Amino acid sequence: MERNDKQTATPHQLIMQNRQVLEMTGVSDVDSFDETTVLAYTSMGRLTIRGGGLHIKRLDLECGALTVEGNICALEYTDTHKNGGFFGRLFR
Amino acid sequence: MERNDKQTATPHQLIMQNRQVLEMTGVSDVDSFDETTVLAYTSMGRLTIRGGGLHIKRLDLECGALTVEGNICALEYTDTHKNGGFFGRLFR
Repeated sequence: MERNDKQTATPHQLIMQNRQVLEMTGVSDVDSFDETTVLAYTSMGRLTIRGGGLHIKRLDLECGALTVEGNICALEYTDTHKNGGFFGRLFR
Repeated sequence: MERNDKQTATPHQLIMQNRQVLEMTGVSDVDSFDETTVLAYTSMGRLTIRGGGLHIKRLDLECGALTVEGNICALEYTDTHKNGGFFGRLFR
């Protein structure tokens, strides 16, 4: 199997059990979280996790691991690298 | 391995690799699919898969398995059993 040296190519795997436990790898940062929304940066784009009673059970940025528990309703990816965010668009 | 008699109690597990391959169990039906949207019924509610270039690689309703490939952007659950759908609301 070929390995990529670039950090952006870190594999991003996601496993969810019964919409209650969500484990993932390839996480570089968690921007914000509360009971209804967790905003994480992954090697495959920004990921917004929506639900109710959400809490972070495990966060280990050293190995890129994040585990979220709660009632999960939606997972949405945004490719932030494409437009560079608000300031990226403003100052180009 | 214990088997559940009730279809609604079937475990629903979801595994996604790099936003490209999405495997899941606990699927009871696929309502519709095209390149941008797959609508599946799972034991944990209705699941809408959004993305680009989506295609179904495997569908086995006998064992509740569904595999979707493509560029996956979002997964959204809707708890259809709560309101019983359009006709359920109309004729109650």
